[in-house]
Amino acid sequence: MELSRLGEFGLIERIRRKIPEGRGVRIGIGDDAAWITNQKDSSLVTADLLIEGVHFDLRWTSLFDLGHKALAVNLSDIAAMGGLPAYVILSLGLPANLDSAQIDAFYRGLQALANRTGVALVGGDTNAAVTLIVSVCVIGHAPYTPVRRNGARVGDDIYVSGTVGDAALGLKLLQSGRQGEGKKRAVAKLLARHHRPEPRLTLGLLLAKSRLATAMIDVSDGLLQDLGHICEASGVGATISKEQLPLSAAYRAVVETGETATALTGGEDYELLFCGRREHRTRIETLSERTGVSVKRIGVCTARAKGIIVIDRSGQTTPFRIRGYDHFANKNFRAIKSSSREVLKAKFSTS
Amino acid sequence: MELSRLGEFGLIERIRRKIPEGRGVRIGIGDDAAWITNQKDSSLVTADLLIEGVHFDLRWTSLFDLGHKALAVNLSDIAAMGGLPAYVILSLGLPANLDSAQIDAFYRGLQALANRTGVALVGGDTNAAVTLIVSVCVIGHAPYTPVRRNGARVGDDIYVSGTVGDAALGLKLLQSGRQGEGKKRAVAKLLARHHRPEPRLTLGLLLAKSRLATAMIDVSDGLLQDLGHICEASGVGATISKEQLPLSAAYRAVVETGETATALTGGEDYELLFCGRREHRTRIETLSERTGVSVKRIGVCTARAKGIIVIDRSGQTTPFRIRGYDHFANKNFRAIKSSSREVLKAKFSTS
Repeated sequence: MELSRLGEFGLIERIRRKIPEGRGVRIGIGDDAAWITNQKDSSLVTADLLIEGVHFDLRWTSLFDLGHKALAVNLSDIAAMGGLPAYVILSLGLPANLDSAQIDAFYRGLQALANRTGVALVGGDTNAAVTLIVSVCVIGHAPYTPVRRNGARVGDDIYVSGTVGDAALGLKLLQSGRQGEGKKRAVAKLLARHHRPEPRLTLGLLLAKSRLATAMIDVSDGLLQDLGHICEASGVGATISKEQLPLSAAYRAVVETGETATALTGGEDYELLFCGRREHRTRIETLSERTGVSVKRIGVCTARAKGIIVIDRSGQTTPFRIRGYDHFANKNFRAIKSSSREVLKAKFSTS
Repeated sequence: MELSRLGEFGLIERIRRKIPEGRGVRIGIGDDAAWITNQKDSSLVTADLLIEGVHFDLRWTSLFDLGHKALAVNLSDIAAMGGLPAYVILSLGLPANLDSAQIDAFYRGLQALANRTGVALVGGDTNAAVTLIVSVCVIGHAPYTPVRRNGARVGDDIYVSGTVGDAALGLKLLQSGRQGEGKKRAVAKLLARHHRPEPRLTLGLLLAKSRLATAMIDVSDGLLQDLGHICEASGVGATISKEQLPLSAAYRAVVETGETATALTGGEDYELLFCGRREHRTRIETLSERTGVSVKRIGVCTARAKGIIVIDRSGQTTPFRIRGYDHFANKNFRAIKSSSREVLKAKFSTS
């Protein structure tokens, strides 16, 4: 056919058809990362936008830490799919009051984590802006079948890695200006968890390789909130035992005895929350030991109708209503929810 | 080796080494898009960040047009490498005063262009923000060797597609509030060029396939400014003939006779600017006819020391000093330029 009759995009469509991989979107919107495949390789793609005043406060966040965190939160999404991060694309909006030393510090923070995790900065865009805007996109490989949010079944165990609530406690200390008071080591630990989250890449990768995780997500908006995404996607309920929550010594040193609210609903831990078959308990424990990342069994998947329940030592149960950080906990959220259907579901407002 | 001795990222490094494609960054920062390759496939990646008040003004930009443009400018970067766009990742910062109809309109504008160009929206992130922030990352295929900015040689012809200056004129009309005055068809044409740029995907792809373009870039910051990037990367100078500039009838209807400043320095045309060997003139003309996109020969590459010169009908020459839109034309730009070396070079402040 004459090119002029094919039109501008007719030719493109023809060339596209000749490329063996076709469209190749295996997982689109609605999980921690998109999974796009070519014939011989497949890729995971994820993005996060961090805005000054919404996601970070430069009064207590150093540019070095921000550089680390902007990459870490994206790597955590790749980890939650069981992927291997490879490339990072960085777009920045820079206010005029930032000086070159600060910008250098940002890149050093990002680059240090990129080097350590084998990720290459391949491009981006830089612009003037009124407040600091950091937009990161990470592309990774999927050497194994990615772990989605939708594979949990009734009776599956629920696990979380590391400890939960530390990052949110650290933020509370910063916001209240109490970070200088007593218990210095505990406070330093909590602030570090807030400022420099560590993506659980090895654990995520091995869980995908071993196929031991039936569903997985990273804890970014709060344990119960993110568990809610697994429950929703998998069509199950969940019962979580307060007593089993992995709390750090620093957490316990700072909160009142028995306080678990921050651990249950505080965001930004970037730990992995996943489900596994009951018969795989030993294998999951062994895998955790091999990676050196602790993993704690905190509950069990139940029938969907039961919803999410938190149970304490005495057997008292509390049904959970989502209270983790919700970016649109105002009329705007309702407006967005009512629009744009699929596009804004799941991933778009949650991870 | 025991996993615990390998450490968190030791294992990752081992798995990475087993993945055949290795790191695979063929072109990183410094061109219109990054080129990343796997064993059997290679990808182009580009990103652009659009910020309300910096890149667009909602007083005269509809959300539908903004959705179109946010994707179009990224597709144009893929076109300028001769690639085929495939996936788009969209991160949004949404102010509370946007209503759901506006957000719907944005997605409709983006989706319409995505559908037409065969691009799939695969993920992103949505947040609350004070002003509207649109961060787009596009991943494409590279079915042919991508065309870089650095292949122009002394004696090569310089070409530009379509017409130049229209988008910038359209913006000037909007900014001056004169868009309602006389010459309605011309004004409508110029506004459309500003609001709905058309990425030159077919032309870019065929120029890559035929290897007729020795260097290529899209005109985003202004013809001379973007030509400067080709000259810098290729180590050549350039002489551009004012008389040869492709000006639209709408452009000529609105400006004073002989005015070419807007065509030379106005941004956002998203036309392709490329170089080609003198002996390929006929083939390039034929290729242009086949795609239905006009291509105009506007100058020639000269020795680097000559710099960039604009020559008029009478033979009078004007040396060019960059005056296109510079995102950091203030002290902040100097601060950024002095920092972060490679990272902020080329692509980062220019396209």
